[in-house]
Amino acid sequence: MAFAAPVADIAFWLRTVAGLDEDLAAGVFPDLSADLVDAVLAEAGRFATDEIAPLNVLGDREGARFENGAVTMPAAWKPVFERWVEGGWTALDGDPEYGGQGLPVMLYAATLEMWNAASTAFATGPMLTAGAIEALSAHGSAEQKATYLPKLIAGTWTGTMNLTESQAGSDLGPMRTRAEPVGDGSYRITGQKIFITYGDHDLTDNIVHLVLARLPDAPAGTRGISLFVVPKFLVGADGSLGARNAAGPVGIEHKLGIHASPTCVMQFDGAVGWLVGEPNRGLAAMFTMMNSARMSVGVQGVGVAERAYQRALAYALDRRQGRAPGWTGEGLSPIVHHPDVKRMLLTMRAQTDVARALCFSLARAIDRGRTGPEEARAAFAERAALLTPIAKAFATDTGVEVASLGVQVHGGMGYIEETGAAQHLRDARILTIYEGTNGIQAIDLVTRKLTLRGGEVVSAWLAELGAIAREALAVGEADLGERVEAALADLAGATHALQRALAEGRGTDALAGATAYLRLAALAAGGAYHLAAVLADRAAGTATPAAARRLAVARFYATDILPQTGGLAAAATAGGAVLVGVTPDILTA
Amino acid sequence: MAFAAPVADIAFWLRTVAGLDEDLAAGVFPDLSADLVDAVLAEAGRFATDEIAPLNVLGDREGARFENGAVTMPAAWKPVFERWVEGGWTALDGDPEYGGQGLPVMLYAATLEMWNAASTAFATGPMLTAGAIEALSAHGSAEQKATYLPKLIAGTWTGTMNLTESQAGSDLGPMRTRAEPVGDGSYRITGQKIFITYGDHDLTDNIVHLVLARLPDAPAGTRGISLFVVPKFLVGADGSLGARNAAGPVGIEHKLGIHASPTCVMQFDGAVGWLVGEPNRGLAAMFTMMNSARMSVGVQGVGVAERAYQRALAYALDRRQGRAPGWTGEGLSPIVHHPDVKRMLLTMRAQTDVARALCFSLARAIDRGRTGPEEARAAFAERAALLTPIAKAFATDTGVEVASLGVQVHGGMGYIEETGAAQHLRDARILTIYEGTNGIQAIDLVTRKLTLRGGEVVSAWLAELGAIAREALAVGEADLGERVEAALADLAGATHALQRALAEGRGTDALAGATAYLRLAALAAGGAYHLAAVLADRAAGTATPAAARRLAVARFYATDILPQTGGLAAAATAGGAVLVGVTPDILTA
Repeated sequence: MAFAAPVADIAFWLRTVAGLDEDLAAGVFPDLSADLVDAVLAEAGRFATDEIAPLNVLGDREGARFENGAVTMPAAWKPVFERWVEGGWTALDGDPEYGGQGLPVMLYAATLEMWNAASTAFATGPMLTAGAIEALSAHGSAEQKATYLPKLIAGTWTGTMNLTESQAGSDLGPMRTRAEPVGDGSYRITGQKIFITYGDHDLTDNIVHLVLARLPDAPAGTRGISLFVVPKFLVGADGSLGARNAAGPVGIEHKLGIHASPTCVMQFDGAVGWLVGEPNRGLAAMFTMMNSARMSVGVQGVGVAERAYQRALAYALDRRQGRAPGWTGEGLSPIVHHPDVKRMLLTMRAQTDVARALCFSLARAIDRGRTGPEEARAAFAERAALLTPIAKAFATDTGVEVASLGVQVHGGMGYIEETGAAQHLRDARILTIYEGTNGIQAIDLVTRKLTLRGGEVVSAWLAELGAIAREALAVGEADLGERVEAALADLAGATHALQRALAEGRGTDALAGATAYLRLAALAAGGAYHLAAVLADRAAGTATPAAARRLAVARFYATDILPQTGGLAAAATAGGAVLVGVTPDILTA
Repeated sequence: MAFAAPVADIAFWLRTVAGLDEDLAAGVFPDLSADLVDAVLAEAGRFATDEIAPLNVLGDREGARFENGAVTMPAAWKPVFERWVEGGWTALDGDPEYGGQGLPVMLYAATLEMWNAASTAFATGPMLTAGAIEALSAHGSAEQKATYLPKLIAGTWTGTMNLTESQAGSDLGPMRTRAEPVGDGSYRITGQKIFITYGDHDLTDNIVHLVLARLPDAPAGTRGISLFVVPKFLVGADGSLGARNAAGPVGIEHKLGIHASPTCVMQFDGAVGWLVGEPNRGLAAMFTMMNSARMSVGVQGVGVAERAYQRALAYALDRRQGRAPGWTGEGLSPIVHHPDVKRMLLTMRAQTDVARALCFSLARAIDRGRTGPEEARAAFAERAALLTPIAKAFATDTGVEVASLGVQVHGGMGYIEETGAAQHLRDARILTIYEGTNGIQAIDLVTRKLTLRGGEVVSAWLAELGAIAREALAVGEADLGERVEAALADLAGATHALQRALAEGRGTDALAGATAYLRLAALAAGGAYHLAAVLADRAAGTATPAAARRLAVARFYATDILPQTGGLAAAATAGGAVLVGVTPDILTA
């Protein structure tokens, strides 16, 4: 099935619902024009469609291989990666001081969706490089920046993030890898890390590992973790590559999906490294890049969902079975005409759009937290903090759910690997886990984000969403507007209930409802986002087929999906008493 | 992770909620005692746990292989299969006239859950044999029965069902395989079938293929399909095996899961076959076995879910990360103490129990449709018809959802194939598709089952469920009882709305709401089933840990899952207007 990057749809959501057009009109990005946005998206779409998409199946079948202490990528990978680097895509939102193009995170998110839809395994590596760039930019010394940033931004080297150890995953406190100072300003890093994405590969000459480790006599737990930069090959003062460092893979994992994204066990045997930022402040350094890293994983979910949707739709247009009600054509109906198949496709489309709107809104908040009018930045940064767990968790849940629906639309053919639908489900299944499990996202949302600035951050968001519903009522979309208002009322009620639980020290009540609350927030906001899309189409005044689709999808979402908010609000506010009573001996009885 | 067949739990649900104890007390099964039930379940549990469960991972890795025109099973398969056959398990519910033990379908369902939990790929083959036995029993001639039934029931031969062709899946109308009479009472079958489960293997000397094909001049569509029996090796009058028939595999599929269950492309090149039942009535013959075949697939969902739950629980008891609220033990908490992990485990447990209750209730209805007081049989047969689509669809959705939650509980380890959690998700993913996709189950439920006997069949079921809720109110479980009553009210309202839509000729409205309605029915009934379990424990008066668990699970289900019924009722009754308006050109815009 031919994939085509959904350039027009991405541009629509980015420019209208997420607010890029508003920012362009306000001159927030002085060097950016609507034409440049269109040109970037079109060229990214072309590259994703023509060059990366064909790698996807091949990468799944061939996979990354570990042999003789090194990882070999599928043969087709390197030429495409090199053309992608030459196209300047790694430098898109990079700091111009180090060779970057300085474009907004919004465009990074938009293009990242396309790379991920084309091949999630291909897109995963550069996301880690982006994380390394962000960490070094925020915490590296001038020398470290000069040494590593130009190469990482140019894409001639890649980066990795080495956090997890076998006993330290969601909780990094028990981490054991240690760093010994040797007196010349460098350290010797020793330990083993697991689940290191693109920990090794043959795409570039060097790999820049960022590694969390403990200094001698560091405090126990997460307050005793420091960040180090550990290149695969040491770098000379002139930028030339020197000796191979004692840092490398000792194996790769056999995973359910993203087979061409090597997940390495990394061994550091007294590897030479340098401290990045303050001693014992490594975890804080990680947190500075968390919003964008979690947004990126959410965008992966959107990308996989989009690809799965396109494949399912193409199959449903082609495959004929039975005669659908109202079918007047010759012979059997294409299954797209059967109401239950339409329901699945509309669910896929509607939910993917919500995930995209959440991620792009988060991208915009990240941008505006850094640029544009100074007085607005703090509020946007807080908005980004609020949206991060919602976008990450909902968009990745959506990746899994939409990919699974995609299998279902294919019927028995969906279970056959050659069809391709099953790969999307396998690829998507990691997204709800890495970069903070979705359970951890929900806990972050409820315990840290609902209380930001005394609850004003979430209140401001709810007010904005409510204004969209009221605008709909004002222009005559009464049914849609009322349904969205009802959903937002469920969200507001649950928000206040959980804030009260926290204020009254009933933390377990809040934790027990966290996952239901997060989904409630995403679904209710999704109603407003769909409505905002409809309003934007009305304002543009053009009766395009795409606008007709968006109106139909918004209506379907409002009648078929949005009513879930009532049940979710009940679950979110049910309290933790039942959970507290469920002890392990009861579960094993 | 060591799996242990949940013998005590299965016995509990079978005897209390599904009603086996009531039937035993009423003498419905004259030759069956509670002791015999216990003995059968215990021995099945032992065999599933000790002999079959170790095959599961091995079967996944090694898979069935196709070489030189034949399928080879993993080497460890045959000895276990032979011991399983020797144990008499294939004959459990078989007709005593042909060597069966004549035990109830309830016990078949209970043991089938254990085989499937132990290894879904192992259990899949015998399910097809059971289908062949049922079809031959109902429609075969005396000679056909005498030739095939003793071997199939004894398990020395296996059976297959050959329905699907590449252009004929959910809709069998376009089927092309043809059968030419040759004048001696036999036919020559020619055509290709796909997705034929255990179409070939090396476990037994012979395989009995049941094949749908068209007679010359048969009417077009589904009214022109006949059923034939086509043995792999022809059978002499004395039962000896003769010439190899021109019926065999030409390939097997590369599937997402159940790798050790060979899914064959079968070629019939003028294969010798004999008509089973009436000409052109093959599809009707298939329908007679549909209730139990669909129940069996539902039971597969329960089995996979149970296995995934056990694995996730064991991991959550062992894996330590962070410190859960209230944790006073040394060091980090086992993750089972974290509220969100408990939520996942309880969701898995609660939903698996509902799926099991639905399947066992269906099994009981099938039993009582055939045996026990004559005057009750018609109503039980209709109850079976009603429960079939609900049990099949909800239990298989549960298999997928619970297996996916199981991956999530494992965090990053869940994505590594060696952990085993991902296999359950891969194995489960076919269950919502085969034996009628879950979308087709929902359509069957809404368009055919809600109107059975003018709607009285569903009304009688709702009345029974309501009586459980009222009993709870009477004995002081007020909160649980009220919550279940509210859910049942949602179900009753949606039931009437869909019945009205059908009565008024608004078929698309009914079809549009079918999937939401089916889930609503299962979830609301699930509330009553959990309540029935709690009431049974109260009546027994023993304060066991298992009873405490069931009460906690019932409460969790009532507060966290049951509130979904409101949103589902809204979606079920939203009507089809939006779907009708969504034409292919809008979707592709």
